[in-house]
Amino acid sequence: MADKQTEKEDAGMESVISSRVRLARNLADLPFPCRNTAEQAKEVAARVKDAVFGNGAMADKFVYVDIRELNPIDRQTLVEKHLISPEMLEEKKETGAMISKDEKVSIMINEEDHLRIQCLFQGMRLNKAWQLCDKINTLLEEKLDFAFSGSYGYLTSCPTNAGTGMRASVMLHLPALVMTGYIKNVLEACGKLGVAVRGIYGEHSEASGNMFQISNQVTLGQSEEEILASVSNVASQIIGQERALRNELYKQNSYRFEDRVYRSLGIFANARIISSEESLKLLSDIRMGVDMGIIKNLNMGTINEIMLLIQPASLQKSAGRVLSPEERDIKRAELIRSKLGKGE
Amino acid sequence: MADKQTEKEDAGMESVISSRVRLARNLADLPFPCRNTAEQAKEVAARVKDAVFGNGAMADKFVYVDIRELNPIDRQTLVEKHLISPEMLEEKKETGAMISKDEKVSIMINEEDHLRIQCLFQGMRLNKAWQLCDKINTLLEEKLDFAFSGSYGYLTSCPTNAGTGMRASVMLHLPALVMTGYIKNVLEACGKLGVAVRGIYGEHSEASGNMFQISNQVTLGQSEEEILASVSNVASQIIGQERALRNELYKQNSYRFEDRVYRSLGIFANARIISSEESLKLLSDIRMGVDMGIIKNLNMGTINEIMLLIQPASLQKSAGRVLSPEERDIKRAELIRSKLGKGE
Repeated sequence: MADKQTEKEDAGMESVISSRVRLARNLADLPFPCRNTAEQAKEVAARVKDAVFGNGAMADKFVYVDIRELNPIDRQTLVEKHLISPEMLEEKKETGAMISKDEKVSIMINEEDHLRIQCLFQGMRLNKAWQLCDKINTLLEEKLDFAFSGSYGYLTSCPTNAGTGMRASVMLHLPALVMTGYIKNVLEACGKLGVAVRGIYGEHSEASGNMFQISNQVTLGQSEEEILASVSNVASQIIGQERALRNELYKQNSYRFEDRVYRSLGIFANARIISSEESLKLLSDIRMGVDMGIIKNLNMGTINEIMLLIQPASLQKSAGRVLSPEERDIKRAELIRSKLGKGE
Repeated sequence: MADKQTEKEDAGMESVISSRVRLARNLADLPFPCRNTAEQAKEVAARVKDAVFGNGAMADKFVYVDIRELNPIDRQTLVEKHLISPEMLEEKKETGAMISKDEKVSIMINEEDHLRIQCLFQGMRLNKAWQLCDKINTLLEEKLDFAFSGSYGYLTSCPTNAGTGMRASVMLHLPALVMTGYIKNVLEACGKLGVAVRGIYGEHSEASGNMFQISNQVTLGQSEEEILASVSNVASQIIGQERALRNELYKQNSYRFEDRVYRSLGIFANARIISSEESLKLLSDIRMGVDMGIIKNLNMGTINEIMLLIQPASLQKSAGRVLSPEERDIKRAELIRSKLGKGE
């Protein structure tokens, strides 16, 4: 049974864009961020900095970023890279992020909780993300005293995060489920299985480019391992359905299917002005084409790189200045062409 | 003045797809095709064959095609190549065409008139087409006695063709005039200048791919040279407007303009299923892009070749069998990709 499960996950690996685990933690002797003072927020940041930079196992692997000191483009770039949450941009008190140099780990400070330890990996690597989170948590606990109750587990600002304080999520690419409309059934089923479905930038964001984030709804009364197993189990079932539908659609009319994929590639590789929304739509077709072996001379790494770089702030960061929406659409098209030229 | 005119024509050459001259002629001693018997139709064909194959200057340059003996695909292929008119396919009596091996000359027999001598050249070559028609006419008159009146000139089945019996036409590609809606003004002005505008397959056909055929309305009371000058004068004025509009549109937003051209190329070069209508629409953008130097690695010869070969009968002829509409759309996409691979 366990073997069969692993096999299933492996077969659908390409439909999993990324895996993320985050742990919510709070310092025992200070009020939660929603109730603390600017002085106390500063104190939280200072203690986290001390815990990281004072620890030989972490010190040289991290940099601290004070969100308020960044210019708007740099801030937004961090959001686009999923290293900080959009909500952190609104915060008036000191908010920062301790970001690992390989950008796999981000410890957000003074977000909804004092600490949000987040590990992000490409592909289906939930266990790896969890192991790294767990390790960081252990290292931090050497210096920090986290709010913890014997009966509830870790205490959090919002009670829905109490217990493990963990959210395990995977980003899935589900074009065939969207095309056929079956995605509605999947979303309904997820609700019943205690799994939440969100858009690409987390809560309250919309699914774009047929990307859906699947994560656990409950953090209390289950062990971390149980949560991971449950999310990964639901994810692999959804992927199985996505895969079966793609094959069915392809069998129904392979020319029609390939036509869709290649037209998207043709437009994407040739446009001179292209919006973010259209790019994601076309990229979804292209990703599916690469997944299914229809498009051969393009690898998934190039697609993932393009998807990251064509976001508004990343584009402006690489241009080195603020761009108007039309300028962005032109720069985006240029960037895509240059990356496809290299990638193909 | 004459120099300025020539210069103008040369500048807009690329907007002229082809030039055609045809002369309507009838044998003096036999009734017009609409009134003759099957026997008399046969007699007309026999005399034309004799006049061509019995003349050293023409004999080995022509082949005779009996339309009724051809299979439907071969017949339609001749229509697509503009070597015979669509009306000839309906005829019950003997109808044929004496076609030169280089396919520049076609003498249609028993169409609306006993003979329709037609010369077709690519680009702006009205004078060349006229000179060749005139030469063929002179050679035929060595053996054939054409119906001619001292006061009316050549007599024709329909009085609107009497006199010179000549129609001089040029096929123009006018995307910017269509895009901006100014084509309406052009069509109105043409009417007032005694010039007719038709679609790609002559009378009663629609303009597709932004192609318009411009020709003289009057054949009587003007010399051949006057007719040629008038058609070519109107054509070069239209081309001048088309050119000015393209430059204006390009100046307004060069990125938007190039985006349109390149997206069309991207779809055209990547589609796996494509209809004839969509192909002509995309080819129009691509042709404009090549014309204006936006697309560099594609030449007009390849575009013209593709435009000819993607027509339904030509596709079926190259496949060697009857194809369903969907099979044609697939074959068309394959052919385009293979030609662009070579052409680029």
